[in-house]
Amino acid sequence: MSDSRSKALRYAQENQSKFLSELNELIRIPSVSTEDNKKGDMEKAAEWIASKMRQIGLDNVGVYPTGGHPAVYGEYLNAPQAPTVLVYGHYDVQPPDPVDLWESDPFEPVQKGENLYARGASDMKGQVIISLAAVESILKQDVFPVNVKFIVEGEEEIGSPNLENFIGSHQELLSCDVALNPDTGMISATIPTITYGLRGLAYFELKVFGPEHDLHSGLFGGIVHNPAQVMADLIAGMHDKNGRVTLPGFYNRVRILSEEERRELARLPLSEKEYIRQTGVSELWEGEKGYTAVERLGARPTLEINGLYSGFIDPGSKTVIPSYAMAKISTRLVPDQNPEETYQQLLEYLRENAPSTVRWEVIKMAGGPACLTDPQLPATQALAQSLETVFGEKPVYKLEGGSVPVTSTMEDLLGVKSVLTGFGLPDDNIHAPNEKLHLPTFYKGIDTLIHFFYNMRNIN
Amino acid sequence: MSDSRSKALRYAQENQSKFLSELNELIRIPSVSTEDNKKGDMEKAAEWIASKMRQIGLDNVGVYPTGGHPAVYGEYLNAPQAPTVLVYGHYDVQPPDPVDLWESDPFEPVQKGENLYARGASDMKGQVIISLAAVESILKQDVFPVNVKFIVEGEEEIGSPNLENFIGSHQELLSCDVALNPDTGMISATIPTITYGLRGLAYFELKVFGPEHDLHSGLFGGIVHNPAQVMADLIAGMHDKNGRVTLPGFYNRVRILSEEERRELARLPLSEKEYIRQTGVSELWEGEKGYTAVERLGARPTLEINGLYSGFIDPGSKTVIPSYAMAKISTRLVPDQNPEETYQQLLEYLRENAPSTVRWEVIKMAGGPACLTDPQLPATQALAQSLETVFGEKPVYKLEGGSVPVTSTMEDLLGVKSVLTGFGLPDDNIHAPNEKLHLPTFYKGIDTLIHFFYNMRNIN
Repeated sequence: MSDSRSKALRYAQENQSKFLSELNELIRIPSVSTEDNKKGDMEKAAEWIASKMRQIGLDNVGVYPTGGHPAVYGEYLNAPQAPTVLVYGHYDVQPPDPVDLWESDPFEPVQKGENLYARGASDMKGQVIISLAAVESILKQDVFPVNVKFIVEGEEEIGSPNLENFIGSHQELLSCDVALNPDTGMISATIPTITYGLRGLAYFELKVFGPEHDLHSGLFGGIVHNPAQVMADLIAGMHDKNGRVTLPGFYNRVRILSEEERRELARLPLSEKEYIRQTGVSELWEGEKGYTAVERLGARPTLEINGLYSGFIDPGSKTVIPSYAMAKISTRLVPDQNPEETYQQLLEYLRENAPSTVRWEVIKMAGGPACLTDPQLPATQALAQSLETVFGEKPVYKLEGGSVPVTSTMEDLLGVKSVLTGFGLPDDNIHAPNEKLHLPTFYKGIDTLIHFFYNMRNIN
Repeated sequence: MSDSRSKALRYAQENQSKFLSELNELIRIPSVSTEDNKKGDMEKAAEWIASKMRQIGLDNVGVYPTGGHPAVYGEYLNAPQAPTVLVYGHYDVQPPDPVDLWESDPFEPVQKGENLYARGASDMKGQVIISLAAVESILKQDVFPVNVKFIVEGEEEIGSPNLENFIGSHQELLSCDVALNPDTGMISATIPTITYGLRGLAYFELKVFGPEHDLHSGLFGGIVHNPAQVMADLIAGMHDKNGRVTLPGFYNRVRILSEEERRELARLPLSEKEYIRQTGVSELWEGEKGYTAVERLGARPTLEINGLYSGFIDPGSKTVIPSYAMAKISTRLVPDQNPEETYQQLLEYLRENAPSTVRWEVIKMAGGPACLTDPQLPATQALAQSLETVFGEKPVYKLEGGSVPVTSTMEDLLGVKSVLTGFGLPDDNIHAPNEKLHLPTFYKGIDTLIHFFYNMRNIN
């Protein structure tokens, strides 16, 4: 091991508590991108990251306005012969709702045992700090082995509506040889994981309108079609009895899994028991018939109801026929499905199935296609080697159920592949109450990325 | 017309603005029985009514505590040879939600043209004031032609949970020959209406529980059964394709309409066009196949979704699998259905249809059976005569879709029939935003009840 690499690792080791308190600082800024009244906090979080970048020695640091929340850029380009790595991150977090299910303040990090509890601890402020800490540890010792650029956006949790435009209009600034995206996670604390495929997303809000205002259910029940009832019928009809999504043409472009892929996926150490433990359900759902749990999670598309509202939902009883019903509906897409086509399929489904007694409308929200990368990519192999060094285990390769739309945006606009990894764990409760970060894995993450930057030096 | 009757009618005529300002006073007390924090306002409303009763000369006035909100009693028993009429009323009102759809403050009455807009104006503070104003108009002139008792409760809008117990333990106090219940309405401002049947009610809250907390829909979508999805499936399954309710045995006790009843109902002047105007829907729902709109509204049972909640319902997108889903579900019952049996039928439906991937629970809420009265009842005929005198039209007899559980309670515990009428109109938006009262009909209501009390004198 080179002397500078060991020194960087030692620096990281000695500064763990400093990195942790920096993470705590960042977490305390409630940068919830979905909430309109958090604009000030979004800017504060962006400025915090910019200031941290300057502090560790990055050049050309800037907070760039976008059509929405700003993006932060920084670079260190002093290795003319070596490749350039673009590190992606996002500083925005999911809303903390339902707040009353949190055991502590979502924006006041609390350490219990080996875990740090707070919104964004795992997704992905923890991962952003890991990347910055790794770069800091190297820069404190040495010149940097490769060229590095950072792009940290503030709109990932709302579907990155302005990122495509930002990348498109800053192609030279962001030009690179490969992107590193640490926004995916590990299968368990002992199994380092590289994600070679991600599902896409198409998210919609469906509204069904009935009477002009809520009606007395006794006086009008039987002659006015209840919008909550219509919504339930429409949702129920979106799956058939085999758990397949019924939007017309939904599976047309779904890539068929090869026998080899299915054999590989079957080897992933994901146990039904473990999923049950993580979720607290009594048994797993069979879902789409003919596919294993691992296949259903990463290789097959799904349709989920994320929210549902109609009528009177406070305690007590109110005998109304609601005037409207609303559902948040999202589909997780796989190659080669396309969010715009999914939107058209949903419209077609509604045109075919919504009764003429109601009026409906669909609002298109976040969306992005699925992506696949090649596990044999040299940068992927450099990361695999780093993970094996730190965790003492060869990484597994998985298809992840979540969506990271930036991956395809970077491929389209910058012509680069992304290496997808991350140090979150499946029970981190991301997007849920009591999100947490496993601190020993957080520190191993810093070590892994230090190795990764050194390993990247030899790749062209 | 007797001299005292004319004088009473003249008094009513001359004091219309006084009665209106008394109604405004009562409306300004926001006596919403469903809201726990309104206890003080409930007591205030009860005291207001008691004080008004004393003021007009009733005896033995009292505010009686119950297990919930208090009930107000008052009497005038000075006609030993004449029958005793028990007038029923309730001083509680529905919650004003959704408040933002109101065009004016729900608890600050606003007069526009011939209408008075406020929560409770029609249901049923207006009707309570009509009854008290009629009694006041007579008492100011004369001895009262019959004996009269008032019982005004504060829990009708939450299903009168303590009324049965109160009536059962005050049978002597409340003993009477007939009950007058002005809590139903008119078909239109020109068609006086007597209701001879009411639907019953059985109201439930259904909860479906899935994972312990909200999950990331990408990481778990496909292997965890989404409770919002399960709720939609369960609700959709509660009606078959002919619009019939599928709870096992739901129709077993439903009384078959005779051909004669169907012919009578067909004569009611209820037009599809008028219902469309009142509700603002583009077309009426076909509902249960084989029955007309009028039959579906009064003579056939229905099942309605009154509220629906799951997951993320704020603006924006949040990619969660919700941890639970909730629905408020109520059935309108007809003779001889029974709310307790409906509860058992719902449980049986859920046992048969809920998947083993979720846990569910049902909370029983308001409930009461349907009732039918005889249009030939002498008190009903006395009312019919009064309505014809005031409105210049013979009243129509209808089956109403709403529920007035107190009717069967009084029949069971006091052994008396109820005469059901009222001066609300179908477009009064009761239980909805912008509830209103048609003031010319309000004043005619006072005249009608003045005639009714005089006409009752001759009945034994």
